[in-house]
Amino acid sequence: MFAIAITLLVIEIEVPEGGTNLLGQLLDLWPNYVGYVLSFALIGQVWLNHHAMFQRLKSLDHWTMICNLALLLNVAFLPFPTAVLAQALRTGEGTTVAAVFYGLVMVIGGIFFNAVWWSARRGGHLKEDTTPVEIGAITRRFALGPLLYGVATALGLINAWLSIATYIILIGFFMMENRPHRTRERPRSRQSRGKIS
Amino acid sequence: MFAIAITLLVIEIEVPEGGTNLLGQLLDLWPNYVGYVLSFALIGQVWLNHHAMFQRLKSLDHWTMICNLALLLNVAFLPFPTAVLAQALRTGEGTTVAAVFYGLVMVIGGIFFNAVWWSARRGGHLKEDTTPVEIGAITRRFALGPLLYGVATALGLINAWLSIATYIILIGFFMMENRPHRTRERPRSRQSRGKIS
Amino acid sequence: MFAIAITLLVIEIEVPEGGTNLLGQLLDLWPNYVGYVLSFALIGQVWLNHHAMFQRLKSLDHWTMICNLALLLNVAFLPFPTAVLAQALRTGEGTTVAAVFYGLVMVIGGIFFNAVWWSARRGGHLKEDTTPVEIGAITRRFALGPLLYGVATALGLINAWLSIATYIILIGFFMMENRPHRTRERPRSRQSRGKIS
Amino acid sequence: MFAIAITLLVIEIEVPEGGTNLLGQLLDLWPNYVGYVLSFALIGQVWLNHHAMFQRLKSLDHWTMICNLALLLNVAFLPFPTAVLAQALRTGEGTTVAAVFYGLVMVIGGIFFNAVWWSARRGGHLKEDTTPVEIGAITRRFALGPLLYGVATALGLINAWLSIATYIILIGFFMMENRPHRTRERPRSRQSRGKIS
Repeated sequence: MFAIAITLLVIEIEVPEGGTNLLGQLLDLWPNYVGYVLSFALIGQVWLNHHAMFQRLKSLDHWTMICNLALLLNVAFLPFPTAVLAQALRTGEGTTVAAVFYGLVMVIGGIFFNAVWWSARRGGHLKEDTTPVEIGAITRRFALGPLLYGVATALGLINAWLSIATYIILIGFFMMENRPHRTRERPRSRQSRGKIS
Repeated sequence: MFAIAITLLVIEIEVPEGGTNLLGQLLDLWPNYVGYVLSFALIGQVWLNHHAMFQRLKSLDHWTMICNLALLLNVAFLPFPTAVLAQALRTGEGTTVAAVFYGLVMVIGGIFFNAVWWSARRGGHLKEDTTPVEIGAITRRFALGPLLYGVATALGLINAWLSIATYIILIGFFMMENRPHRTRERPRSRQSRGKIS
Repeated sequence: MFAIAITLLVIEIEVPEGGTNLLGQLLDLWPNYVGYVLSFALIGQVWLNHHAMFQRLKSLDHWTMICNLALLLNVAFLPFPTAVLAQALRTGEGTTVAAVFYGLVMVIGGIFFNAVWWSARRGGHLKEDTTPVEIGAITRRFALGPLLYGVATALGLINAWLSIATYIILIGFFMMENRPHRTRERPRSRQSRGKIS
Repeated sequence: MFAIAITLLVIEIEVPEGGTNLLGQLLDLWPNYVGYVLSFALIGQVWLNHHAMFQRLKSLDHWTMICNLALLLNVAFLPFPTAVLAQALRTGEGTTVAAVFYGLVMVIGGIFFNAVWWSARRGGHLKEDTTPVEIGAITRRFALGPLLYGVATALGLINAWLSIATYIILIGFFMMENRPHRTRERPRSRQSRGKIS
């Protein structure tokens, strides 16, 4: 699902009408490239964290699957706010609304992401080798997501670019922080790797 | 396939032209958001039930695969009636036609879903640990689908919103009711989980 | 790949502009529904046969993968001739060209399908339990494909509907004929089933 | 992901408006067919090489996955430069810009591809049976990619068609050269085959 949503992002970039000034037209589309990379990084980050989270689960129950569906609903929606944001940046109108709209979608996605984790924890679906200390650290890190995205969204009310820059920093942070600490001792199996491509 | 159809739904939401009143334009698209969530929930519900059904099968024959293709044909078609319904709700014209059209697609999908189950049962492809009582309960629950969707579709002839509200209730009902009663004793394997993401 | 191509078909159906005569507009789109079902059945048929063919292979070499890519190139292209055909049927203009164009794409796809099989046979990649009699029967059946599609395409020069009707009959024939004769003795494993959904 | 990007290419081919001269309109779209086959071959080639590369890895670390995401970002972007190139060739305007733009995307993709390989090598994720001689040969062949694509892109400054012809030759070269030398002794398993379809 992540693979599909991430690949669909390109469809929202409209081909310029072309002609003698094609270079200028391609350069004018820079907000679309920014939006493309931004949402690609966002979905990629959620994908990596989702993958890391599911590697810690030994089973799934019905409610966790429903929460997961809600998360997918949010991720699959991302091409739309991305296109709205790119258009606003290109025309210079509605940038505040577009940046806040984009941020709200991120906040809701972060809440759904946490709902999956909480539901899995409550149902007792974590693998036995996960220590309470690890669980606490993961829970805190995941909970930070919607909080920080919310702050970044609020910054959009002051200045759209300020919030976009914060989105980029946060996505990078959550992409890096997802790194498991024990990769060297327990390399992921071929099986699990297949999920990220 | 379900993952692809569910992710394509967003493409049918057209990006508003933007400008100074972007907020108003985004709010005016509320029927598209309703349609998006409605069809996402519908496909998600069919996905969960389809997954639960296939977990009870030990093999497949040719006719069951043909019935399954017919079900996929219906599911993959859903972005179209969704877009038609959203447009009708936005313009306020043709809402009855759009709501009934949407409902008819649901009814046909429900019939194809039952065809897969009947074909698998007739071919003797159910796992041995499924008792006749369980089979009867599942058969009755699945058969309820197209019947109840049919009633909801007929309600659309009176009032479009009445049928839409009933669709939402029914999708929620079938999403919840799919819950297997023995999750705790026999947690699903990692393998099977992979199918829902 | 088949799952993606088959799900993308719906995108080519344009949402009517709506208004008070929505019912009439939805009915006017019947050629699009015909095209959707036709191409869905065609891709579904190739999918089932492709699946059956790959179940007889124990390994793959580089040339077989290149032939397979050529087949995928053809299958992924199908939404385009489908949309051209639906439009021609709706406007009543260019139906001969559109029907022959569609048929030519089928013929080329059939040739690529045979190329995969021939390449796999030549490279010695068939499972050992496949008898020469079986191989001969499969080879003849696969070879029939592009020949019969070619005849149906030629019929399009006389009458577009004659060729379309023949396409439908041929797709149905190859969908049914794909049935393996030994399903009951050797049910397909869960693993292989997963490929068709 | 490759399967999705490769299947989305067809969406960028706009259906001609039709009418009495449908044949002429379909023929006029030849640049779109050229672009479709070009990008299909390009993604197919990257797919085969990516698959061959991942078969030599026994595990993955975080940085390799990030590099892989960057490669996917590039591959998923390809439908856009393809559509730009096809349009330029059709109108005869902006062909130089479009050909160089396409080539630059290829060069960047080649760099990301090499980054995945370098990251995997550095992290010690290669299977033990890969000899230093093999590793050196692979490293040199992969490194050739962005270099040769860069030369072909520069040729585009002289003549767009010259660079396009060179792209085709290079894609063919890298598709053929990917052939593993030991297929016969160690046929790929069913499992791994499943990745290419």
